[in-house]
Amino acid sequence: MVRMVDVILKKRNGEVLSKEEIELFVEGYTNGTIPDYQASAFLMAVYFKGMNAEEQADLTMAMVNSGEQIDLSAIDGVKVDKHSTGGVGDTTTLILVPLVAACGVPVAKMSGRGLGHTGGTLDKLEAMEGFHIELTKEQFVKQVNDLKLAVIGQSGNLTPADQLIYALRDVTATVDSIPLIASSIMSKKIAAGADAIVLDVKSGDGAFMKTMEDAKALAEAMVAIGHQVGRQTMAVLSDMSQPLGNAIGNALEVKEAIETLQGKGPKDLTELCLVLGSQMIVLGGKAQTLVEAREMLEEVMANGEALRLFGELIAAQGGNAKVIEDLSLLPTAKFEKAVQAEHSGYITKMEADELGIAAMLLGAGRATKEDEIDLAVGITLHKKVGDYVEKGEALATIHANREDVAQSETLILKHMHIGANQVAPPALIGEVITCSEEK
Amino acid sequence: MVRMVDVILKKRNGEVLSKEEIELFVEGYTNGTIPDYQASAFLMAVYFKGMNAEEQADLTMAMVNSGEQIDLSAIDGVKVDKHSTGGVGDTTTLILVPLVAACGVPVAKMSGRGLGHTGGTLDKLEAMEGFHIELTKEQFVKQVNDLKLAVIGQSGNLTPADQLIYALRDVTATVDSIPLIASSIMSKKIAAGADAIVLDVKSGDGAFMKTMEDAKALAEAMVAIGHQVGRQTMAVLSDMSQPLGNAIGNALEVKEAIETLQGKGPKDLTELCLVLGSQMIVLGGKAQTLVEAREMLEEVMANGEALRLFGELIAAQGGNAKVIEDLSLLPTAKFEKAVQAEHSGYITKMEADELGIAAMLLGAGRATKEDEIDLAVGITLHKKVGDYVEKGEALATIHANREDVAQSETLILKHMHIGANQVAPPALIGEVITCSEEK
Repeated sequence: MVRMVDVILKKRNGEVLSKEEIELFVEGYTNGTIPDYQASAFLMAVYFKGMNAEEQADLTMAMVNSGEQIDLSAIDGVKVDKHSTGGVGDTTTLILVPLVAACGVPVAKMSGRGLGHTGGTLDKLEAMEGFHIELTKEQFVKQVNDLKLAVIGQSGNLTPADQLIYALRDVTATVDSIPLIASSIMSKKIAAGADAIVLDVKSGDGAFMKTMEDAKALAEAMVAIGHQVGRQTMAVLSDMSQPLGNAIGNALEVKEAIETLQGKGPKDLTELCLVLGSQMIVLGGKAQTLVEAREMLEEVMANGEALRLFGELIAAQGGNAKVIEDLSLLPTAKFEKAVQAEHSGYITKMEADELGIAAMLLGAGRATKEDEIDLAVGITLHKKVGDYVEKGEALATIHANREDVAQSETLILKHMHIGANQVAPPALIGEVITCSEEK
Repeated sequence: MVRMVDVILKKRNGEVLSKEEIELFVEGYTNGTIPDYQASAFLMAVYFKGMNAEEQADLTMAMVNSGEQIDLSAIDGVKVDKHSTGGVGDTTTLILVPLVAACGVPVAKMSGRGLGHTGGTLDKLEAMEGFHIELTKEQFVKQVNDLKLAVIGQSGNLTPADQLIYALRDVTATVDSIPLIASSIMSKKIAAGADAIVLDVKSGDGAFMKTMEDAKALAEAMVAIGHQVGRQTMAVLSDMSQPLGNAIGNALEVKEAIETLQGKGPKDLTELCLVLGSQMIVLGGKAQTLVEAREMLEEVMANGEALRLFGELIAAQGGNAKVIEDLSLLPTAKFEKAVQAEHSGYITKMEADELGIAAMLLGAGRATKEDEIDLAVGITLHKKVGDYVEKGEALATIHANREDVAQSETLILKHMHIGANQVAPPALIGEVITCSEEK
């Protein structure tokens, strides 16, 4: 009979744990036979000593097995899910769902609301009047089989172990451990029924991972887990030192998503969608190479097929599909205020997290689960890093439902740095991480 | 308002904690406002990142302040306490108490029972019929002022924080952390009223610290704490690769202690008592140098003064002082069995811990608090490392109250290794650790 204290000791001494030992921890902590003080000591030992790919895979699957698992086998084809580690102005999901579906890969997306600078994908979708995210299991499967796409809220008791462990990590300074982050993310994707997974791992001011090194380590850890547990997984390292795209705010991001599907979106957002989408198409088995996949995506964007599918998604889930032609149907804030550059020069830096806070202060995001979101408000950026701005020219536009926006304006002025010398924009896409079979 | 999660994070990141942060942990955990899962995560972070001397001193004093403190100010002179980190056959306390008292240093000793191969000092004293270890505070102080010595059981609510923290460490694989061990030991000595402290830090098979390096680190940590909190502290590193002295068992060790006070004790035990005693005399202010102190100790041993005082201690606490002249008054086991060498050669090694277990199996020690001790039983060793033994000659004598002693005999034969080549006995005394004022 293995005792938890010996499992803690083993990890503390840097040894590799067996599947049984990891299951003892996950199952015991979930069913209450292992007390939280042993769990937290164990997590701190993992923080210091890490876990190898096999241990991380065992941890992931133990968390998957702690609760329900969504069975998507009634949906034809390879179900590819995408996960982003989160950032500011990240509208990729809204764009990728119809884009990839238009290429024939079924997209059965479960999304969340979450805390942050803006709402989650569900909140953004609800910016379209009438859109509802509650479908029965049968409706969900049927809609994906019929239309190739559906987006619903997460329901059911998925990965309860992960929820318990995360809550404990949050109060014991063990959040930022790569094996724990990687297994947490992967367990949720797998429990939600993904056959294959594409990961967008962001780094920079506005991301959870502040450095490229950490982002790469996290990406590699998740790809290795995917490989271990038989889910093909690819990851892209992407920049979050400045916000992605130009919109920060819920309705504003829906508008930007529609524009991107029309081929008129911001260059960075469009590019990231094409990169992530290509991986989804390849993993979904609809193209042999990323180049071939990209051509398919560009085609469905150019010929309007992706946008048309987005309209079908909206209509199928109770919204008004006309929004894809008439953006004025989206909620609009009462006030608009241009934030004017105080002097001329080049944008040298814009801290994504601080600009996110500027949007959150307007009501675009939630600080706690109970907060109400104002779907109409937010910020539109007119300049990005590397751009030239004249004194008095608009750096950004604030969309607000109240007149006093001084706090947000101050933040924007402070964090869109203007300098005398031009700097190159940060590279949007870093490495692509895949796991070779030999690894 | 400092939050515990931030204190954990700070230590996890290797930063130095303030007194307030350490007090937050100790006080909060003791009064229940800090949950055990945060305490255990914190302890694991300390395991990995350590604590500097000031942090350890703050931790020590916070634990001291968590409960009652014994006030020995009514006793004249410097109260010097001695602590041993524990080993097999360690009878030094019984010898040191009268030896040091005979040189004029007041010895107000609070002792424990504890778990282990044999009982603690209290158990050993109770091997003398009638000896009682319950004195009121007033009786205790009066006896020390009158006779210079008294030994009582620990009472009162001393260092409750240490008790709680130790219990948590025991189940979270955070026992063997030098800062945590050092502050635990020092807090108990200080709460028990010590003005100055002499430490016997053992290393080897039979000790908690298996290596000399660990023992030295622990000794240095404790001496540094003593210096920080204004208690003069000295430490000796001593060998516990083989048992100390020749007796393992309660009455057997009392007998050995009396023989040592008579100047007829085993060389190693006598030497360690002289070394530790010298430090106690110096810290007690009765000698300027260790050499001078040693001469004083040798004198009170030679002239019978130390033995006479031991008799006074026994009489004062209800025992029969005649035992110091008539060892047959001590309890005797029913059976004696000589353990004979299976071949001739030199003793090359004898694992102290395994020989301790051989004694424990006879009933000499407790595995759990509820176990009864048989005060009469144990083992007498006739050979130590470096000695020559003839085939058939007695290696040891088993003293038992039952006939079947096969298990203990097997252990003794297995762990008193006999080889063809003579080896040097392990050095009994290693370094002496003191803290210079400049440090």
